[in-house]
Amino acid sequence: MTSTEPKSVSGGVLAARGFVGAGVACGIKGGDTLDLVLIHCPQPCAAAATVTTNRMRSVTCDITEQNLADGTARTVVANSGNANACTGAEGARNARRMAELAAEVTGVAPEEVVVCSTGAIGVQLPMEKIEAGIREAGERLAPDRPDEVARAIMTTDTVPKQSAYEVETGGRTVRVGGICKGAGMIEPRMATMLCFISTDAVIEAPLLRETLRDCVDLSFNRISVDGSRSTNDTVAILANGQAGNAPIQVGAPEAEAFRAALLQVTTDLAQMIVRDGEGTSKFIEIKVTGARDEAEAEQLARAVANYALVKTAVFGGDFNWGRIAAAVGAAGVDFERDEIEISLAGIKVWADGEPQPFDGYAAEAAMQEQDVSVEMAFCRGDGAATMWAADLTLDYVKFNADREHKPGAQTT
Amino acid sequence: MTSTEPKSVSGGVLAARGFVGAGVACGIKGGDTLDLVLIHCPQPCAAAATVTTNRMRSVTCDITEQNLADGTARTVVANSGNANACTGAEGARNARRMAELAAEVTGVAPEEVVVCSTGAIGVQLPMEKIEAGIREAGERLAPDRPDEVARAIMTTDTVPKQSAYEVETGGRTVRVGGICKGAGMIEPRMATMLCFISTDAVIEAPLLRETLRDCVDLSFNRISVDGSRSTNDTVAILANGQAGNAPIQVGAPEAEAFRAALLQVTTDLAQMIVRDGEGTSKFIEIKVTGARDEAEAEQLARAVANYALVKTAVFGGDFNWGRIAAAVGAAGVDFERDEIEISLAGIKVWADGEPQPFDGYAAEAAMQEQDVSVEMAFCRGDGAATMWAADLTLDYVKFNADREHKPGAQTT
Repeated sequence: MTSTEPKSVSGGVLAARGFVGAGVACGIKGGDTLDLVLIHCPQPCAAAATVTTNRMRSVTCDITEQNLADGTARTVVANSGNANACTGAEGARNARRMAELAAEVTGVAPEEVVVCSTGAIGVQLPMEKIEAGIREAGERLAPDRPDEVARAIMTTDTVPKQSAYEVETGGRTVRVGGICKGAGMIEPRMATMLCFISTDAVIEAPLLRETLRDCVDLSFNRISVDGSRSTNDTVAILANGQAGNAPIQVGAPEAEAFRAALLQVTTDLAQMIVRDGEGTSKFIEIKVTGARDEAEAEQLARAVANYALVKTAVFGGDFNWGRIAAAVGAAGVDFERDEIEISLAGIKVWADGEPQPFDGYAAEAAMQEQDVSVEMAFCRGDGAATMWAADLTLDYVKFNADREHKPGAQTT
Repeated sequence: MTSTEPKSVSGGVLAARGFVGAGVACGIKGGDTLDLVLIHCPQPCAAAATVTTNRMRSVTCDITEQNLADGTARTVVANSGNANACTGAEGARNARRMAELAAEVTGVAPEEVVVCSTGAIGVQLPMEKIEAGIREAGERLAPDRPDEVARAIMTTDTVPKQSAYEVETGGRTVRVGGICKGAGMIEPRMATMLCFISTDAVIEAPLLRETLRDCVDLSFNRISVDGSRSTNDTVAILANGQAGNAPIQVGAPEAEAFRAALLQVTTDLAQMIVRDGEGTSKFIEIKVTGARDEAEAEQLARAVANYALVKTAVFGGDFNWGRIAAAVGAAGVDFERDEIEISLAGIKVWADGEPQPFDGYAAEAAMQEQDVSVEMAFCRGDGAATMWAADLTLDYVKFNADREHKPGAQTT
């Protein structure tokens, strides 16, 4: 066994050797608010991405998917404040132009660029500002600006989100680090919000792609702020091989070590998105065990994660276990009432088809904690899944009922 | 052609000849708040019901389903303030006892009783109060108390909900009338909240069942207040044949006339539930046309009806069409961006894969109306569906975050 547990390190998306980045304020958001980011590696990289399955997705997702079809990329360009979604032919021209400009300033081919946008839907990009921003970012590229890069992709996020780990594989230390943004319109399902990850591991594109998909499924695809899948969700990873480890092989212990580090990064980032969800006041962990398979477990957990009356009860600190029962009963999974055990905040409330006695004062106290757990145990198989959800708060509704945007605009 | 358009009449669930009812305050809710209802017909009735598909459903749904398996029933007993859901063996005994008591006071067999409960989940029924209430209601039964009956099944509803129509079939006037309650935990899907309908039509149970299912699918199953399917949803209909019409035959014009009247009643009641949803401030009608089939149209409409960011935008009066695009794109239906036309509040915003120009002031003004329409037109078939949804408001969150219940209690 050559692998060890992943160890947290600083440096975010620039923690891995050989990557440089920059964030600039190009004026999309106005003032000196950072709103454009460039991440680059001068060496060739294996690359992979998952993008949203939303049918009205941004044209940037189309281009990113096309550019990564060959498993390589060296540059990421992204803006916040404008999603370049539902923008038609002009939007497509603008997205291609962004990729060309990023390619020009980093000395790569346009096909080696991952291009992303996040922000208002249905509004054209201000291309003069974007062009000036990309040129400025190109001149600022450096390995020591991870915080600036993390800040520049924020929209309604209140804190930047980054995570990096290192792990030993084959006698070398491999680093994996990433940044992401979230806040609203969050139930990624088949992809995620914007997330950029870099690693210096030596790993080929097919295994990188498979490992990324696996880790995204267990992290970003297991969170829900508001059950709303966005038009722009993208996770991209670049691997530049600067760690000099022996190439990671499918099925080898090194592959498991790399997966563990990547999963730790994606899980950290996914949980940060929930904790910083629009208006979020509580963090709900929903755990299902003993389901027929993982898909069934996820379906049961997701039903509770998105049930408005569970989310408002958690917000209100109400030990309202009947809503958990109603939520899981409506999950679309066939089961009998005596097949499930339910615990809320660590207190068993339902078992053997009967409500369970509990101490009401202890229950009320447990609901005042920042983190609230929901556990649902079946005995029909070994399918298990964990989801992380935000509560539904007055601030969420206030924030999203606010006419802060011009007609036709929307923040993804 | 022997049928005419259904005509609205007064009398609610007691509009049809031969039905009597009563509502009493038995003390579940406290004070003089009506909380128990009895509806009865001395003559034999054909009967049908649809109940929730929630797997944690109330035992009352089990009993109602069993009792209606033979297509007959003559008495409905229902209480509000307590759902008798997640109450185990004691709850099952109590539900059976309720049916026995209702049978006793109305002189029918227990198997001829529809028994329903709505209110807090996980709390045992106060059987002494229930028993006294059923006896009192039995003595009060009369044909002229529809308002009292409609009030007695309310929980968090702010207004009673009733509707009745008459229609000519075969030279006779047939009446169909009903009551329902709604407010929260509303996305019935395969059934609905509590709804009781009576008719004096001569119609056999199989056709009655089929017509009810059809009308429920197009009315109660097309509304969403909060995307939360409850544990107790039940719609029941009794047909006592007192109109003396020639028996309604499958496929005959009379069957269409009867269906039209029943659909009018269920649609009226379903829309009343949305307008009186917990915290509802606006009524959203979502219309899909040109989908491959009705199921696809419904899936597309439902995705918009339940998208939190559409519901908060409507609450805020924000002409935020990008959120409609994001919502329908995440519906799980495969389509291309240029296959859909979207209109919001009567204003076309997306067509031919391009955003459409519109007058921003007119758009903002249109969003201030009480009713807001969303239209989505495809050209892939003749599948159409309409859904009705409530907005997501501060009052909804306030109401449902309130710890007004004792630990373990919940209002369905």
